[in-house]
Amino acid sequence: MGTSTTVSSALLTRFQAVRSLTDSLSEPLCAEDQVVQSMPDASPTKWHRAHTTWFFETFVLPRRSGGHAPFHPAYGYLFNSYYEAVGARHARNERGLLSRPTVDEVAAYRRHIDTAVGDLLTGEPLDDATATLIELGINHEQQHQELLLMDIKHLLAQNPLRPEYAEPWQQPSSTEPPPLQWHEHDGGIVPVGHQGEGFAFDNESPRHDVLLAPFRLADRLTTCGEWIEFIDDGGYERAELWLSDGWARRCDEQWDAPLYWHREDEHWRVFTLRGDRPVNPAEPVCHVSFFEADAYARWAGARLPHEAEWETVAVEQLDAGPLEGHFLDDGPYHPTAASSTWRHHPVRQLFGDVWEFTSSPYIGYPGFSPAAGAVGEYNGKFMSGQMVLRGGCCVTPWNHIRPTYRNFFPPHSRWQFGGVRLASDDD
Amino acid sequence: MGTSTTVSSALLTRFQAVRSLTDSLSEPLCAEDQVVQSMPDASPTKWHRAHTTWFFETFVLPRRSGGHAPFHPAYGYLFNSYYEAVGARHARNERGLLSRPTVDEVAAYRRHIDTAVGDLLTGEPLDDATATLIELGINHEQQHQELLLMDIKHLLAQNPLRPEYAEPWQQPSSTEPPPLQWHEHDGGIVPVGHQGEGFAFDNESPRHDVLLAPFRLADRLTTCGEWIEFIDDGGYERAELWLSDGWARRCDEQWDAPLYWHREDEHWRVFTLRGDRPVNPAEPVCHVSFFEADAYARWAGARLPHEAEWETVAVEQLDAGPLEGHFLDDGPYHPTAASSTWRHHPVRQLFGDVWEFTSSPYIGYPGFSPAAGAVGEYNGKFMSGQMVLRGGCCVTPWNHIRPTYRNFFPPHSRWQFGGVRLASDDD
Amino acid sequence: MGTSTTVSSALLTRFQAVRSLTDSLSEPLCAEDQVVQSMPDASPTKWHRAHTTWFFETFVLPRRSGGHAPFHPAYGYLFNSYYEAVGARHARNERGLLSRPTVDEVAAYRRHIDTAVGDLLTGEPLDDATATLIELGINHEQQHQELLLMDIKHLLAQNPLRPEYAEPWQQPSSTEPPPLQWHEHDGGIVPVGHQGEGFAFDNESPRHDVLLAPFRLADRLTTCGEWIEFIDDGGYERAELWLSDGWARRCDEQWDAPLYWHREDEHWRVFTLRGDRPVNPAEPVCHVSFFEADAYARWAGARLPHEAEWETVAVEQLDAGPLEGHFLDDGPYHPTAASSTWRHHPVRQLFGDVWEFTSSPYIGYPGFSPAAGAVGEYNGKFMSGQMVLRGGCCVTPWNHIRPTYRNFFPPHSRWQFGGVRLASDDD
Amino acid sequence: MGTSTTVSSALLTRFQAVRSLTDSLSEPLCAEDQVVQSMPDASPTKWHRAHTTWFFETFVLPRRSGGHAPFHPAYGYLFNSYYEAVGARHARNERGLLSRPTVDEVAAYRRHIDTAVGDLLTGEPLDDATATLIELGINHEQQHQELLLMDIKHLLAQNPLRPEYAEPWQQPSSTEPPPLQWHEHDGGIVPVGHQGEGFAFDNESPRHDVLLAPFRLADRLTTCGEWIEFIDDGGYERAELWLSDGWARRCDEQWDAPLYWHREDEHWRVFTLRGDRPVNPAEPVCHVSFFEADAYARWAGARLPHEAEWETVAVEQLDAGPLEGHFLDDGPYHPTAASSTWRHHPVRQLFGDVWEFTSSPYIGYPGFSPAAGAVGEYNGKFMSGQMVLRGGCCVTPWNHIRPTYRNFFPPHSRWQFGGVRLASDDD
Repeated sequence: MGTSTTVSSALLTRFQAVRSLTDSLSEPLCAEDQVVQSMPDASPTKWHRAHTTWFFETFVLPRRSGGHAPFHPAYGYLFNSYYEAVGARHARNERGLLSRPTVDEVAAYRRHIDTAVGDLLTGEPLDDATATLIELGINHEQQHQELLLMDIKHLLAQNPLRPEYAEPWQQPSSTEPPPLQWHEHDGGIVPVGHQGEGFAFDNESPRHDVLLAPFRLADRLTTCGEWIEFIDDGGYERAELWLSDGWARRCDEQWDAPLYWHREDEHWRVFTLRGDRPVNPAEPVCHVSFFEADAYARWAGARLPHEAEWETVAVEQLDAGPLEGHFLDDGPYHPTAASSTWRHHPVRQLFGDVWEFTSSPYIGYPGFSPAAGAVGEYNGKFMSGQMVLRGGCCVTPWNHIRPTYRNFFPPHSRWQFGGVRLASDDD
Repeated sequence: MGTSTTVSSALLTRFQAVRSLTDSLSEPLCAEDQVVQSMPDASPTKWHRAHTTWFFETFVLPRRSGGHAPFHPAYGYLFNSYYEAVGARHARNERGLLSRPTVDEVAAYRRHIDTAVGDLLTGEPLDDATATLIELGINHEQQHQELLLMDIKHLLAQNPLRPEYAEPWQQPSSTEPPPLQWHEHDGGIVPVGHQGEGFAFDNESPRHDVLLAPFRLADRLTTCGEWIEFIDDGGYERAELWLSDGWARRCDEQWDAPLYWHREDEHWRVFTLRGDRPVNPAEPVCHVSFFEADAYARWAGARLPHEAEWETVAVEQLDAGPLEGHFLDDGPYHPTAASSTWRHHPVRQLFGDVWEFTSSPYIGYPGFSPAAGAVGEYNGKFMSGQMVLRGGCCVTPWNHIRPTYRNFFPPHSRWQFGGVRLASDDD
Repeated sequence: MGTSTTVSSALLTRFQAVRSLTDSLSEPLCAEDQVVQSMPDASPTKWHRAHTTWFFETFVLPRRSGGHAPFHPAYGYLFNSYYEAVGARHARNERGLLSRPTVDEVAAYRRHIDTAVGDLLTGEPLDDATATLIELGINHEQQHQELLLMDIKHLLAQNPLRPEYAEPWQQPSSTEPPPLQWHEHDGGIVPVGHQGEGFAFDNESPRHDVLLAPFRLADRLTTCGEWIEFIDDGGYERAELWLSDGWARRCDEQWDAPLYWHREDEHWRVFTLRGDRPVNPAEPVCHVSFFEADAYARWAGARLPHEAEWETVAVEQLDAGPLEGHFLDDGPYHPTAASSTWRHHPVRQLFGDVWEFTSSPYIGYPGFSPAAGAVGEYNGKFMSGQMVLRGGCCVTPWNHIRPTYRNFFPPHSRWQFGGVRLASDDD
Repeated sequence: MGTSTTVSSALLTRFQAVRSLTDSLSEPLCAEDQVVQSMPDASPTKWHRAHTTWFFETFVLPRRSGGHAPFHPAYGYLFNSYYEAVGARHARNERGLLSRPTVDEVAAYRRHIDTAVGDLLTGEPLDDATATLIELGINHEQQHQELLLMDIKHLLAQNPLRPEYAEPWQQPSSTEPPPLQWHEHDGGIVPVGHQGEGFAFDNESPRHDVLLAPFRLADRLTTCGEWIEFIDDGGYERAELWLSDGWARRCDEQWDAPLYWHREDEHWRVFTLRGDRPVNPAEPVCHVSFFEADAYARWAGARLPHEAEWETVAVEQLDAGPLEGHFLDDGPYHPTAASSTWRHHPVRQLFGDVWEFTSSPYIGYPGFSPAAGAVGEYNGKFMSGQMVLRGGCCVTPWNHIRPTYRNFFPPHSRWQFGGVRLASDDD
């Protein structure tokens, strides 16, 4: 069954907007910035730009009547990320060895595929499967927009010159955050997972019921000021606060503060995409690992929320009002709400500041099965050794955030914009 | 409040039985066998014997009125495994460098501490806390009895001479296993976790309710014969069957069969504690990792059970009859039931053959808090990056097995006696 | 005592020529090519361009009357290679993480320092020590011109797209090389090391006498055709031909041919700076390690020459005629003599084809002492674990070659243009 | 041509004496000590005892008329060290994984082979080649006697219990060493290498002439007292004193004193085979690497001797009097001369205290060719990446020492008994 012209047209608009945003995110970067891989987990900007294009070329364009002639015989190999079913691919940790294709050649690749997808969307009637794959490609590219910014931040932070990605933004003078208060919830049998018409990844399904005991959730995120108290109280030196693997990692990598923090003349400073500046005690702590978040929670006499607890509260809050970001100043997006103005709302900062660590290992929901075909490798095969994070952060495209969204990273990862919201058992 | 003399006396009996079993497990081993560490995860026999002794010396004996003079000034350092609260310790991966104390000196250490604990148990009235710690020490030593056998099997398997730990046991002529059948369960709200008077580790509490969807559990373990079908069908070569981390591990370590299997003249053989022998197609497959178990389940069109599903069925089955082991021949314990005789029971082989992988990451139950004091490090701090196994295996002391018991290993570990029971969603 | 204006003027001419050549070597490269570090031993083009500039800024410009204000406060740190006496420096294996300064910023740095050195050379009278340091800087930059080409070749070779640095050059149709003949030498007490007015590195001194037994030296280099015979005779599979460390390396890195060779349809092809092309059996084998050269010599019933043997013959040959390169086509320099035209000369190809491995470990000559000051770290501190190579190669600037020149690389290194000339004892 | 009965009989006596010494060196060790491998470079005592036996079984016994039936089918594999020509072998770094064969089984293996070699030597007339191989086997075992003691010292030093191999020996009260004086030598053309009838390894040949400039050699070894001055003057912190590779190693492994030294209450102590005791400032410094020796020499304004310089002086000194050891107390052998009694001799301590580092990389002498057959792998294939040491040390069997003997170790190795004698150029 075909998709209507209206749908195709809306899809084209969104396709073009997303593709265009990726290009504008690369604009502040010189060619040199776009080629380097700062660690095996990160990818060069140029690679993100090419890989997101490859995604459309590989999964969407072959569905055109008449087929699709590959733009370049080697790109299928070079820009496949991890799809075993699609074939061999260039080693992930060697992406930074590829000085060619150049940034300009990648831009030409993008334009070529954009045109072809545009033709597809304005030409023949679109079948549902193709529409679904384009939708997936759009969401895929949004994920890489965030990765691009995470990765470029990591790269620039390695450089003693401390280059800025975007102009510093004048933070409002810091105000005291409101005292942390607990939002109480009665628990019970609650639905978890995606429902309805909108797009969601396969890992948000199937929607199912979970039994929750009564619990309490912090009404705001943990702040940098609170994190400094944790540091000053020996939080990074007291093994009893840490999981065993976390403590080993802390010792190996000599963690003594969040990633990107450094001490200068007894004051903490932080490297951001807008340059190096003092830590603002009122803003949410960011770039901590699950291990640090977990240790902090133990120190605070609390715990991290289960993902079902988080989702339940998030859905309820969303029902009570529109999705409103309370952005950190770090990313390229202009913060719409300063950290000096605190919303009057039962539970603040759920969306768009930092990804919030949950206590939930990332596994499939009961009855989960991956999407059919090669795109089934998208999420399912990563369901071991990672933790779920919720909420979206200041470098997540705002229309990519939803309460059922399950992000995931290994418990030691720090380069994602991850922060902390406490939870506790009801007494 | 004091513990009664009867309790003390029963505790002494059990203490002596457990201590004596450890010694008899070491008896087939020469001094040379007892000193080597075959990999960082494994420990020398001698170390197990000393560490279990250190446990009583460190946590129990200082509670004697009059205190306890350390047997040797260095043993506190040498035989602490991972208790940060107790102080510095010898590096885990260097346990095999210690040729001293000798096996005889360790035996003398054991006798000395045995006497002291015996005096404690027959002398002054025992307070509850001390009794609890002795009980914990007994269960701790039982865990190390299993580890000792796992570790010595791993060591002997490295040796081209293929030494036997115990005499070969005449396996009954192999009979066809009964066809796998599905035990159906309606799910619902079920209780999970330990209750009652008997001993349990802190990670089995608190008992709490879990909501389960209807599910099906295989009525027997996956056999070696079935595993050979998986191998022959390319199970170890098809990336699409594997989790991403599992596939990476398989490639790095070139897995093509369970640990200890090797092919000779086109037939599979297996190294056991009773020597090298042909694989018996009827017996449960053993020494596979979680990653392999998970890939097998996917191949079989099924999944692994959630730990709450497993426990629910196990408790129900146990209510229907006594705990009866259906032992593999691998361990030193004489198998009480041959794999040729298949019990008539709805669900077979739940206890005492192989540890059964669940799909559940090892985390604390809702409301979990570790035991107070240094022994709080026993379980809680390992709650990341591991998977839960259930049931107990052929080298687990039989009185150490219970349906709420949560064993845990990293998803790539293979040297524990781990096997597979399938589950699936109710259609 | 001051250096005359004529000397200053000649030095300026040479300084400018060398600086200009470096820039033109970078010209075929895009910005992306210039930023990547393909392995810890190699450096980005951009880094070579900046570091050679740093050398003049650090060692020469502070000698100006009135001193020198650093071009950029961080460049002293970023572009110091290994001079401990100069201070802390950026880690060698992280040079590829620096996307900034950009290629353009490095070019501006070069121009700035060029102007300052020009002012120094045209202004005040030059003292001898400064002139010596400028001379050293010129020779230093020539070394980096070769390194730049070695490193960029290594980088481009990692890329499945096989980019060309320079346009393919039409090789003359291959002609049979003349049969290898032995040049006999009587040995005796011979002088070794630099003498006279011209520039030489400290490691070429002091000139001293060495006692040589009679020996024979091959009158030409080992060819690719001969190397293929070695391969076909199992040269890479026969442990008895190899030094123990060499065999271990061969096994670890799975060497089965020179670096940059690959087999296609049973024919050997080679990646060069002028693209991928068939191996020419007549041209000298290149990109082999000392270990391979040594194994080849053993297979051929010969040995590698001692560096004193090589130098003695080279000096004698040079006395008999001008230094004439017999260039390989690999580099950016246009070959002046095709490998199809074989000079009639007792000993051919001594200079400008490939660096020739000697059997001599790189140590100081008797009585050696490094130059005074920080530049004393230039050569002396590397006198362990490396082997001496002689002769200069097709990517060595022709006016940087001399018979006393001692190049050195670890015995496993292959990315330098290293080849083989046989020697043997006189029977 | 056969060897005479007298020769056979003398050979048998020496064979038995050497074999018996190996056994007595193992006697102070328990079975546990004999099985552990403390690092990849070291081997278990048990392995040394078996491997030296394997040497006779493999190279000598098959020459018996009637041949030789292997003692055990797997020992050829298990106890081959590095002879590629003999076949596959157990991995060097896994020798410590072999708990079997046991120490007793190895002893039985030794007895069996001893009997067989005895039979060979007392039975049929001995051909020259066999006699040569037995001689080689005797010398081979003497090398392993030293290795056994080096390795067991390294093992015991890892143990916090600090076990003693032999009883402490009452050192004479320390006396001031005589001030270091320089022994002058005119240089000239000198012969180097073995000559005459006695046994020598292939690497001591061919005897050849070397041209030496005039030089000076220290008349005694560098003492621990002098080394402490080096330490106190920042010798381990000043990069300018070190070779680049040496400095990297020092930083990686955090060297701040010789191996086995540790500071206690501001005094240096040292672990020896006779236990832990204060450093004696008068005794030769020991267990330093070539890198440290080289840095020390630079600090002292001197250099290390070339091996030809050392040999020339040693031969001259030996001509002037008998080989007299001036033993350190470290080894199991009773020191015959206390360090408090200083011989009146132009050059002291040449033999039997510590191996003396030379500045000479270990390569073949001009015209060197390895012995024929598998034993040709004995020395030749190790001729890269190592440095020559001369003189023999306190754990070298006294009748295994000679002035032409070339020992060799990598420049970073410290577990051999290596020390320092200075040299310098004649001014």
